[in-house]
Amino acid sequence: MDLDKLVHQPTRLELFAYLYRRGESSFTDLREDLDLTEGNLSSHLQRMEDAGAVEVNKEFVDKRPRTTAVLTDDGEELFEEHVQQLESLIDALDDE
Amino acid sequence: MDLDKLVHQPTRLELFAYLYRRGESSFTDLREDLDLTEGNLSSHLQRMEDAGAVEVNKEFVDKRPRTTAVLTDDGEELFEEHVQQLESLIDALDDE
Repeated sequence: MDLDKLVHQPTRLELFAYLYRRGESSFTDLREDLDLTEGNLSSHLQRMEDAGAVEVNKEFVDKRPRTTAVLTDDGEELFEEHVQQLESLIDALDDE
Repeated sequence: MDLDKLVHQPTRLELFAYLYRRGESSFTDLREDLDLTEGNLSSHLQRMEDAGAVEVNKEFVDKRPRTTAVLTDDGEELFEEHVQQLESLIDALDDE
């Protein structure tokens, strides 16, 4: 079983799951809901963006900068594959 | 969600699952079935033993050294908690 470290890293696994569930989310919501520091969240999102798994958008709303993140199709696929691997590991526990 | 890195690291997650399913297992079986190098397996088992999650036994069988590993009660409990956390993350995907 080859668990993809991009997805499997604990904080990123939560990020993938959060974005997978909620779709496009603001940086602030991600930071608050997942209880992350700004630096930590930025570095993980950068890593995910570099891998093509997430798209980060920056825009001005009412003259204030707003950053959002959304999984790309590849990101969703990567996460779904990862969940299947975790599910097969868990299901196999009942085999013995 | 606080995923325990001792269990969550990809190779160790497979080790925990293998030992959880099969009980006491030989070093050779672990190495072959999980396709690990001797050094890699030894270092992960050492880390797990140091944390009290696994017991490593060394004995002579027909004058040949034989090493086995078995999860301790703490190790089983740690793994079960981890599986529950992964399951709740996966189940929550259907909530939105």
